Amino acid sequence: MIKLKISIGVSLRHIHLTKEDYYLLFDEEIKEKNPINQPGQFSALETVTLENGDRKIDNVRLIGPFRPYTQVEISRTDAYFLKLNPPVRKSGDLNGAEEITISTKKGKIKRKACILADRHIHITPEERKKYNLNKDVYKVKVTGEKGGIFDNVFIRENPNSYFEMHIDSDDANSFNLKQNDEVEIID
Amino acid sequence: MIKLKISIGVSLRHIHLTKEDYYLLFDEEIKEKNPINQPGQFSALETVTLENGDRKIDNVRLIGPFRPYTQVEISRTDAYFLKLNPPVRKSGDLNGAEEITISTKKGKIKRKACILADRHIHITPEERKKYNLNKDVYKVKVTGEKGGIFDNVFIRENPNSYFEMHIDSDDANSFNLKQNDEVEIID
Repeated sequence: MIKLKISIGVSLRHIHLTKEDYYLLFDEEIKEKNPINQPGQFSALETVTLENGDRKIDNVRLIGPFRPYTQVEISRTDAYFLKLNPPVRKSGDLNGAEEITISTKKGKIKRKACILADRHIHITPEERKKYNLNKDVYKVKVTGEKGGIFDNVFIRENPNSYFEMHIDSDDANSFNLKQNDEVEIID
Repeated sequence: MIKLKISIGVSLRHIHLTKEDYYLLFDEEIKEKNPINQPGQFSALETVTLENGDRKIDNVRLIGPFRPYTQVEISRTDAYFLKLNPPVRKSGDLNGAEEITISTKKGKIKRKACILADRHIHITPEERKKYNLNKDVYKVKVTGEKGGIFDNVFIRENPNSYFEMHIDSDDANSFNLKQNDEVEIID
């Protein structure tokens, strides 16, 4: 029976870009606004607009550095607004991803890149051994007035990780969770 | 150990009005658009705009008939957008409710009326006895990729009820639940 505390990182809607796609959308170099908890990653000063037909969401933050794939992560609330039905996927798995238009003042590109991110936990191999989190998927307990349990929380092991659980804004708002709130991995 | 299936009703943002407040906002009589599952209640053709400072949400549906209190039910996603921090309350309990401006073409009123609705189950006294749901609060299990458990689901007993569980759009979107989806009351 695992009972292990972990802090929450709320992933608001955001985009990752390949270097090639970045320069289709921006002229100047990518600029860091803030570091984020995952080592080496940052919120960029640059934002894009997401479009589908006549629906638009402005000011969608770019997360750097460049990645080998362009990926748009939105909430289901956003998806209803944009009239899209993206699948729940782990980062980098764009199988079945929805086509979406990404625009800036400079340009406009259309990519099969839109997903809902799965609930996941970032962890190093050392921490995983130490905490004995040998399974791929856990449940996570949330206390409080809007508490409950998240099923299907995936372990994302990487040597370059900050130990935290990532959820999207729908999961955060449903459970009344904010950045750095504490929840509990259970088995 | 209770294990009882129940269907979901998703409550989108909406408003209830007293007769007095209705006629401050509309000239003509209230008109039914669709009945809703709870007996005697209906979506009205009339909508209002919710405002707080420079933030606005249009096309917020009125639910009839008139009530003894004016009440605005939004999601936490809406609350962040409107820059409000409403408490989680059961319908009719406006203790600590946030002040919000309600406007139409005809008029504009400001009321301490804005809440986040609690997760609740509508049930008749007969059904409650039959299903042996003698506690005030239950947990509800949701299956699927975005499944889990809702804590703090309140029993709302009323002779004039349709048996279903009401959640707001954040809870629905977090768990990927739609109108009439089936979930399970557990103990």
